[in-house]
Amino acid sequence: MSGTAIAAETDIVPAKKLLATVDAVLTATGADFVTQAVDALDLGFDGILGDFHGGSTRRSGGREPWYPRGTEMRNERQLSIVAADELAAIAAAMGIARVEPEWIGANLVLGGVPRLSMLPAGTMLFFAGGVTLKVDGQNAPCRLAGRSVARNSGMEDVDAGALLFPKHGRRLRGLVAWVEKPGRVARGEQVSVRIPEQWIYRA
Amino acid sequence: MSGTAIAAETDIVPAKKLLATVDAVLTATGADFVTQAVDALDLGFDGILGDFHGGSTRRSGGREPWYPRGTEMRNERQLSIVAADELAAIAAAMGIARVEPEWIGANLVLGGVPRLSMLPAGTMLFFAGGVTLKVDGQNAPCRLAGRSVARNSGMEDVDAGALLFPKHGRRLRGLVAWVEKPGRVARGEQVSVRIPEQWIYRA
Repeated sequence: MSGTAIAAETDIVPAKKLLATVDAVLTATGADFVTQAVDALDLGFDGILGDFHGGSTRRSGGREPWYPRGTEMRNERQLSIVAADELAAIAAAMGIARVEPEWIGANLVLGGVPRLSMLPAGTMLFFAGGVTLKVDGQNAPCRLAGRSVARNSGMEDVDAGALLFPKHGRRLRGLVAWVEKPGRVARGEQVSVRIPEQWIYRA
Repeated sequence: MSGTAIAAETDIVPAKKLLATVDAVLTATGADFVTQAVDALDLGFDGILGDFHGGSTRRSGGREPWYPRGTEMRNERQLSIVAADELAAIAAAMGIARVEPEWIGANLVLGGVPRLSMLPAGTMLFFAGGVTLKVDGQNAPCRLAGRSVARNSGMEDVDAGALLFPKHGRRLRGLVAWVEKPGRVARGEQVSVRIPEQWIYRA
């Protein structure tokens, strides 16, 4: 059995680069995940300095059903990245005027990448100012963010509205990423998006 | 434009679980990357305690041509994971009897997963003893490990032999991973391998 025989069963899609722009940067300096737009974010290896989601580790929650709630684990969810067109699509599906990045705790709004939420794990974001972020994966929309959307958009039944966000936000709610190389990210900055080689693993 | 319309262009392969076994655990306690088999590894958030590749950050090298060499970056390469069948395939292609995990600095030999090196980024390894590792991606075979293979397998021309490993080790040299949840990993332990949802992103 040769090496080639083992590996060649899989079709490889080559790595690829796209260009993006930082349309907004936001941070959660308060007691919850809601963010406010700022001019720039200072990033360390632990994420956004002083942010609600900062830290080298975090406590597990509903996204990690395999752990007892509150288990200490590596914090791969340092930043939340969204795209305006995807938020508009969620809003349309929910029957509301808009979903603002602030309401769902987004830290970066990236423009210029079609179907941002579908960028694969391992995608690297090279910011012109020197920061690198690495995409951990899709951000599953939760009911907590749903409540914030329902409340902020003036829905009468907040409980019912909260459920619409997880339903319609699936695969549109953006990405989570961690800091590979620290520095400052500013609004208006250019980003080189490096999509790694892709393939489908079939056991 | 509805949310569904944006997301539905992509075919999703569902998440899937496999079972694996820890065939060997190894650590590099010396001055270089060469490893020695041990009974168990103690893992913290920074990787293997006292290991050559431990640390929350590392210095960039030839694998990161986009950085000046020596740039401090997040250490996503805490552990090297290999499979015996893939190492045998590399050896056959190189015309040598075998490639030992020690020679190339492997930390874990996993059995039971076909084409281990092709497991996608984001694959989670849940060890029965409580540790979780998250796969960063394929480990690109380098000339340094190639020199070690050439020297250990008794090749006469070590320089020429060193080049054969990167050539024939591509997509067979295993994975690198980081610690999501610390603890102890022991030889013989069972591992639940969780392959995440997969798709191909096309811009």
